[in-house]
Amino acid sequence: MANRTIVILGGAFSGPTAAAHARETDANARIILIERSAAISYAVGGLPYVLSGEVPESASIVPVDAAFFQRDYDVDVRTGVDVVRMDADRHQVHTSAGVLDYDSLIYALGAGSTMPPVFGAEADNVSFLRNPAHLQKIMAALKAGARHVAVVGGGYFGVEAADCLARRGVRVTLIEQGPKLLAEFSPWAAARAAQSLVEQGVEVRLNASITQVNRQGGRVTGLDLGAQSLDVDLVLLTTGVRPRTEIFAAAGGLVLDDGSIAVDDRCTTNLPDVYATSICVSHRHAVTGKPVWTAQASDADKTAQVAGQNAAGGDVRLGPTLGTAIVRAGNLHLARTGSTQLGGRRDVARVQVSGTSCDPFFRGSDSLDVTLYYERRSERLVGAEVVGHAGVDKRIDVLATAVLAKMNLARLGQLDLAYSPPYATARDIVNVAAVVGQQAKRVRMWQPAELEQRAAGTVVLDVRDEAERAARPFEAPAVSLREIRSNKAEFDKHATVVFVCETGRSSYLAACAAVQRGCPGAGYVSGGLRAVRALSL
Amino acid sequence: MANRTIVILGGAFSGPTAAAHARETDANARIILIERSAAISYAVGGLPYVLSGEVPESASIVPVDAAFFQRDYDVDVRTGVDVVRMDADRHQVHTSAGVLDYDSLIYALGAGSTMPPVFGAEADNVSFLRNPAHLQKIMAALKAGARHVAVVGGGYFGVEAADCLARRGVRVTLIEQGPKLLAEFSPWAAARAAQSLVEQGVEVRLNASITQVNRQGGRVTGLDLGAQSLDVDLVLLTTGVRPRTEIFAAAGGLVLDDGSIAVDDRCTTNLPDVYATSICVSHRHAVTGKPVWTAQASDADKTAQVAGQNAAGGDVRLGPTLGTAIVRAGNLHLARTGSTQLGGRRDVARVQVSGTSCDPFFRGSDSLDVTLYYERRSERLVGAEVVGHAGVDKRIDVLATAVLAKMNLARLGQLDLAYSPPYATARDIVNVAAVVGQQAKRVRMWQPAELEQRAAGTVVLDVRDEAERAARPFEAPAVSLREIRSNKAEFDKHATVVFVCETGRSSYLAACAAVQRGCPGAGYVSGGLRAVRALSL
Repeated sequence: MANRTIVILGGAFSGPTAAAHARETDANARIILIERSAAISYAVGGLPYVLSGEVPESASIVPVDAAFFQRDYDVDVRTGVDVVRMDADRHQVHTSAGVLDYDSLIYALGAGSTMPPVFGAEADNVSFLRNPAHLQKIMAALKAGARHVAVVGGGYFGVEAADCLARRGVRVTLIEQGPKLLAEFSPWAAARAAQSLVEQGVEVRLNASITQVNRQGGRVTGLDLGAQSLDVDLVLLTTGVRPRTEIFAAAGGLVLDDGSIAVDDRCTTNLPDVYATSICVSHRHAVTGKPVWTAQASDADKTAQVAGQNAAGGDVRLGPTLGTAIVRAGNLHLARTGSTQLGGRRDVARVQVSGTSCDPFFRGSDSLDVTLYYERRSERLVGAEVVGHAGVDKRIDVLATAVLAKMNLARLGQLDLAYSPPYATARDIVNVAAVVGQQAKRVRMWQPAELEQRAAGTVVLDVRDEAERAARPFEAPAVSLREIRSNKAEFDKHATVVFVCETGRSSYLAACAAVQRGCPGAGYVSGGLRAVRALSL
Repeated sequence: MANRTIVILGGAFSGPTAAAHARETDANARIILIERSAAISYAVGGLPYVLSGEVPESASIVPVDAAFFQRDYDVDVRTGVDVVRMDADRHQVHTSAGVLDYDSLIYALGAGSTMPPVFGAEADNVSFLRNPAHLQKIMAALKAGARHVAVVGGGYFGVEAADCLARRGVRVTLIEQGPKLLAEFSPWAAARAAQSLVEQGVEVRLNASITQVNRQGGRVTGLDLGAQSLDVDLVLLTTGVRPRTEIFAAAGGLVLDDGSIAVDDRCTTNLPDVYATSICVSHRHAVTGKPVWTAQASDADKTAQVAGQNAAGGDVRLGPTLGTAIVRAGNLHLARTGSTQLGGRRDVARVQVSGTSCDPFFRGSDSLDVTLYYERRSERLVGAEVVGHAGVDKRIDVLATAVLAKMNLARLGQLDLAYSPPYATARDIVNVAAVVGQQAKRVRMWQPAELEQRAAGTVVLDVRDEAERAARPFEAPAVSLREIRSNKAEFDKHATVVFVCETGRSSYLAACAAVQRGCPGAGYVSGGLRAVRALSL
């Protein structure tokens, strides 16, 4: 049998990974990698951190040596070549440097940034931040003295770029047309991200539409946001990316509405012997079972391994995605995994707890918040959000693993995590969140914001002692834990009753006792009056 | 029905936790907590970190206010009371302050330090480090000018104490009678811990038996280690703890050989209505299914919740333990989970990989090593060890979750963990370890140390290029990847063949190609010659 020919379309991150895995699987295949730019491999995710100096410029913009790739992996790397079209029936791909026959094709063209219509044409001081060429353009502008940078688009990349530019010391305005940053996060988390960026020195403009772009010569000099005008030296466009799947679609390939290619768990497509990887593909979500386009490098790495091996005759399977993601916004870290949209779903509940990254007495201990989303009936975890100043990445990874494993709250509450004072609390916040979620079966847990929005007829009772009530007044009748426990407290047991205290601890105990004393509607406010007061800060 | 009486024996950590959970479950029970010392609640794990100043002295030795516990939880706290004996038939417990009847008893007496026989009686400057009184004694000695401290026993507590004392700036000698520190860790990891402590300024003495203790008045002045003698100002004994289960056993309670009480998943014991918690209990190991005594606070917390709720009429279940643990030794962090003893088990394999805590170009990125233990046939993860300078706690917790979930290597390799340059690599080291483990199915992976110990007849081949071979000579015939792939390399394909290169990457590819070319015994050295050279540093 003649050697198999594998053609890979696209460099950057996924193409080279797929090539390496194809080579491991088949030592004799002819492997050709086509890339239109000069750099065959670079990490998109590192680019913002060059702006802050946390990644050296050299590391990010020097491409991996194509010669090395050719020697060790015996991959025929052809840079500066454009893909023109695919002919799936003939197993051919047309490029700017001629026609190639293939036995297997790996489609890895990634995603391209979208230009907001108001910007129209290119400009000297307007750039995306998706490849080393963009970075060079931005760094040149900064070194030439750009003092005010507008970042347009408040998704992951916009938040990272704004954060990193602020760390560099330039004035940054982050412009988002929607009501919140970071669409995948809860409004509460997104608001904390915005606040943290403000503390970092970023001007955050939400609900801000750019109505006009002012130009002078080849440069953009200002942006009109309705009545307001903003003078700018440099504009970074981070409004989003779109899968580069036109060539695939033109060859008869099926793409979803979002433009992505939904691959199966072998990374095949509807075109014969065509595999797909990179951030142009969707794959199965672990919770919903539906294809989801995450545009994450970690997912691209996984599809690249699978596509590379299978295109070379292997038979490996892709795991589902959880859409796990983490982003830094100033000194705050925000992470999510799984399914965190309640939407109208009444079968999914959420529980949010505050805690510390490690033993609260240990130097450097810092606060963090964990929110779990779980199915009410089975109590299986379906998603999580973690926000805080330390230890966020650890908790989200544990929770991602638990979501994939379909753990329920009981299992998660008892999960044996590593404890020692510098690293965690003996009952880690992940355990705590699960335990509190289970307690919510016994008594209703109110979120602080719900207290304000309570229905008429709700009975609010204050279980704090006299000194606490005097120090921090709150308008609600007082009742003592002792009175509730001994059944001497007088309140309407058929009503919806919510107990409050400073931290939520005594009021939780009050609610437990009240339920046991025949008041099924008893509940408490999670985090207590301290959390309620924090809402209005 | 009269109110249930629940008697809890033991404060510290588990007793109060059990009391709180009992109260949540039954608002009306009479709950009595007996504790012999004056402090009802303190965290043993925090004590060493007071020595280094990372936990303030006040935080650790001020007991939680018993009055608060009485008010909020309505628990009758009786400190300064000794437990004398239990009468299980009569449901009574005899104490130094009289006899108590119980409906449910929670046994939570923890574990006590063991005095090495050579030390015999107490001394003014010899102390354990298990409670606030010990800490006070040690701090007083340090403040009085103790300059040389001997820490006797190289387990978790000994390593932590030595590390923290060295951080304080005193001279520390850590004495361990066995050949290595940290019995639960691999010899490789334990050696790294010792090395790291040495770098922190600790004198580490392994295989060191104390043959004589020299005294002057009420003080110990020196320790003889065979021929050598060591002058000391203060001695910390961390040789181990023993479950305090004599009273339980005397009442007919069953204890294991190690002295621990093996509870079932409701935390009951063989005595009627007697539950057990704290670090005196064993419970089921997730991998082996056998009871294991971990003496970890995180396990004690879990049994305390379950014992407390069930003793109050609840019905909750304990999750299995994994023996997850983490310890700091100088600037090194070491963690383990699950089953990490190969022993003679041929059905369990291990794979070890080196990597970085986050994107290698990102400021602060540091090295770490992950070792996975998995069943050969099912490739299910059964245990893991993680050693490194950053991100160790995250990886061990992810792996603990994966062990509990019985994930296999394929699942773990594809696990969707959170990626962004400050936190991880796009393919996290946990994924990498699983992927490399799977690769070991294709080609044999040699550990660096195995190369030295290879059997006669093993063929070693060097796949580096001429320049690399000239720069760092290694005595083995050269062969090129191209020759292997094109089947032109001349070597005995029936032999055990091991390829080497600088990093392990080219040699892995060479082994893949050789296997595909009819050499089933081909393998490579994990980490390459760089790792081999590191062995002799």
